[in-house]
Amino acid sequence: MERILSTELAAHAGEEVVLQGWLHRQRRLANVSFVVLRDRAGLAQIVLEEAVELLPETVLEVRGRVVTDPQIELHDAHLTVLAEPAEQPPLELHRPEPKESLPVRLDLAPLALRHTAVRERFRVAARAVHAFRETLDARGFTEIQTPKLVATATEGGANLFRVDYFGGDAFLAQSPQFFKQTMVGVFERVYEVGPVFRAEPHETGRHLSEYVSLDAELGFIRDHRDVMAVLREVVCAMIEAAGGTPPADVPIVRFEDVRTGEEPDLAPEDERRICAEHGELVFVEGFPTAKRPFYTHPDPERPEWSRGFDLLYRGLEIVTGGQRLHLHADYIAALGERGVDPEPFGTYLDAFKYGMPPHGGFAIGLERFTAQVLGLANVREVTLFPRDRNRLAP
Amino acid sequence: MERILSTELAAHAGEEVVLQGWLHRQRRLANVSFVVLRDRAGLAQIVLEEAVELLPETVLEVRGRVVTDPQIELHDAHLTVLAEPAEQPPLELHRPEPKESLPVRLDLAPLALRHTAVRERFRVAARAVHAFRETLDARGFTEIQTPKLVATATEGGANLFRVDYFGGDAFLAQSPQFFKQTMVGVFERVYEVGPVFRAEPHETGRHLSEYVSLDAELGFIRDHRDVMAVLREVVCAMIEAAGGTPPADVPIVRFEDVRTGEEPDLAPEDERRICAEHGELVFVEGFPTAKRPFYTHPDPERPEWSRGFDLLYRGLEIVTGGQRLHLHADYIAALGERGVDPEPFGTYLDAFKYGMPPHGGFAIGLERFTAQVLGLANVREVTLFPRDRNRLAP
Repeated sequence: MERILSTELAAHAGEEVVLQGWLHRQRRLANVSFVVLRDRAGLAQIVLEEAVELLPETVLEVRGRVVTDPQIELHDAHLTVLAEPAEQPPLELHRPEPKESLPVRLDLAPLALRHTAVRERFRVAARAVHAFRETLDARGFTEIQTPKLVATATEGGANLFRVDYFGGDAFLAQSPQFFKQTMVGVFERVYEVGPVFRAEPHETGRHLSEYVSLDAELGFIRDHRDVMAVLREVVCAMIEAAGGTPPADVPIVRFEDVRTGEEPDLAPEDERRICAEHGELVFVEGFPTAKRPFYTHPDPERPEWSRGFDLLYRGLEIVTGGQRLHLHADYIAALGERGVDPEPFGTYLDAFKYGMPPHGGFAIGLERFTAQVLGLANVREVTLFPRDRNRLAP
Repeated sequence: MERILSTELAAHAGEEVVLQGWLHRQRRLANVSFVVLRDRAGLAQIVLEEAVELLPETVLEVRGRVVTDPQIELHDAHLTVLAEPAEQPPLELHRPEPKESLPVRLDLAPLALRHTAVRERFRVAARAVHAFRETLDARGFTEIQTPKLVATATEGGANLFRVDYFGGDAFLAQSPQFFKQTMVGVFERVYEVGPVFRAEPHETGRHLSEYVSLDAELGFIRDHRDVMAVLREVVCAMIEAAGGTPPADVPIVRFEDVRTGEEPDLAPEDERRICAEHGELVFVEGFPTAKRPFYTHPDPERPEWSRGFDLLYRGLEIVTGGQRLHLHADYIAALGERGVDPEPFGTYLDAFKYGMPPHGGFAIGLERFTAQVLGLANVREVTLFPRDRNRLAP
C-alpha cells in the first residue's frame, strides 16, 4: 500500500491507509494511547488500543483506518518501527514555540530544525527564492553560476577569507559583482543565487560570515530607476510568495533628505526611522559616491552623489544596488581617484574594454529578507547552519 | 519608443523599431553598409546608406524600418553609439565556431563567452538546472542552502581546501552530503544547487577545483532503487530541457557484471565500454562497499557489496548516489571498520541519534552533464570561469 501524507487523511475517510513519519508526541490514558505522528506535510493523530512506550523521534510506519468525525484520526492503528533513536532527544519539539535559547538551538540544529514552526521558515525562504527566479525568468534573465574562489577582492579588500590554493593564495568571493557585470556583456540580463563570504569581525543579528545572495544585473538601462523597477517587482513577488502582502506603494526618498545631519551613511536607527516615516518598503537613492563601491555610477549632474540605492524593508536594508560604471576609462579614473592600483582588477576591467552597455543591478540578502518577512530579530533564526566568527559547526 | 529584440523583427514588418545590442559584424559595399547587430536573443541585419567605421563590439542603439522580404532587415537605419570599446577586441566573435584554443578563450573569457554558440551552452545549462528543480518541486522536495565553510571533511579528508577562519582553520565543503542527510530528518526530501570544492591535483577534462553540484536526498525509501527512480525522472527531464531526447530505457547493470576483471572500481574506459554496450544512459549498481564513502549502505544480504550506484551518460559518470546508513550505531561501526576516528564527525552523526528514516540521494555534476548533452570533451567548455590548479582568473 502506498504511503499517504498526514494532510491527505481527510480525502481517505473510512479507508485503510499507511502513514510514515516521526513520533512527535505520545499520551497514555487508561485504555488507549494517542500518538501524534509528524511527516513532511504536518501532524496526524493516531489512536491505539495498546500502550506504546517509544522514544520521541522514533521513525514509524502506521497502518490504520481514517476516521474524520468528530476529528481526523487514525483508528485501529498498527505501528511498525522503521528506525529507533539512539537516545532521548535533548529538545522537546512539540511545544508551539521552541523554549531554548538561540545558541542552544543552533548547537542542536539537526534536531531543533525539526520543529514544525521552525522548518516552515525555510519553506518560506525556498518559496521566496523560487519567486525571485520566476520573476526574472519571465523578464528574459539567464541564470548563471560564477566561481566563489577568486584571485582578488571584489569590494575593496576588507573582510576577505583567504584560502590555501595549491600552495598559493585564493580568496572567497564577497559577491559575484565582477562576474555578473561581465555577464551583462554576454546575456544582457543575468541572475545568480549563491553563497557569499564576509569575514565579519562583529557578531550582530544582521551579519553572517556566509550568506545567500540573490544577485541580478541588467544592461541597456537608462539609469538606476530601471533597476529599481525590476527590483520592486522581484521583492513584491518574494513577499507574496512568503505569504505576505506587498505594499501598494514603494516610495523613493533621497539620501540627502532622510539622513541624520551631515552623516555620510545611514545607521540602523536611520533605517528604522525612514520606514516608520515612509512605509514598510522604501527605496533610498543618491548615496554619496565616496561611500559606495568604486564601480558605482555617479549622478552625471552632481557627481558627488551616486546612482546607488538601498531598499529598506521594515526598518532594515535588505537590498543594495545601483547603476554601475560601464566605460573602461571611467573605471581607471574611479580607481585612480580612490588611490587604488587597477592592476589586481585587470581581468575584471577587461570586460569593459570591449563594449559594455549602461547597466546596473542589485543583491538581496536572503536571510535578511526572510527574517524581516517573518518578523524575526536575528538572521540566524532563518539560516540552517549559520557561520560567524564563533560558529563553524554543526 | 520601447526597444524590441532581434527575434521580434518579423512581427513588426513595415514598422519603425528600435534595437539595442553589439556590433557583431560590418561589411561595406560601394553605396551601402551592412551591420549585424547582436542582442541577447540573436542577430539582426541592418542596412545603412552611410558608411560606418566602428570597432567590433561597439554598443549601439539602432532605429529603422523593418523589411521582411526577401529577408528580415532593418532599412533606413540610424545608429547611436551607446558605448565605445576601449580597443579592438582580440577575438573575432562572428565565426561559426571559435577558432582559438581553449586556454586562449579561457584567458579572454569576458569576451569569448559572447560568441553566440558559446553563450547558448550556458542557456542549456540554465534550462537543465530549471528542470532539475521543477522535477523535484513537483515531488514534494524542499530547496535548501547549506554552508560551504565547514569544520571537518565530508568525504574523508583528501583534496580539501583550507581557509583562514578568524585565526583558526575551516575547510571548503566537498559536498553538502552531511547537511542534506541531516535535512532528511526535517523535510524528508531536499535538494540543493550550489558550488562544491575539490583540490584536484590532476588536470583533466573531467575535473575542476570548483563545480556546481545538483544534490538531492530523500527519506522513507525501500532501497537505492527508489532513489534511482527519482534520479531517472530528473535526468530525463534535464536532457529534454537541454534539447535532447532521453532514451526510452535506462538499463541497470551490476558492477560485478561489467567491471574489468577483478578491478574494484570503473576506469574511464570501462564507463565508455558500458555505455557502448548497454545504452547512452546506464545505471551501474552494487559497487564494492570498501570503495564507496563510509556513509554508503551495504547490501544487507551481501555486505561487501553496497547500495551505491553511478549513472553513466554517453560514456561518463555524471551522477553518483546510493542508499545511506541511517542508524547511529551503523555509522560508528562503519567508521570503526575503516579505522576512522568518529570524533570529528560528531555534529554530523548527531542527526542520526534522533531517528532518521532509511534514505538516499544523488549528486549530479552540472558541468559534466552539460558537456555530455552537448557532446563537448572538456568541462571547461561549459564553465563560465573554470578553476583548477593552474587557473584562478578571470
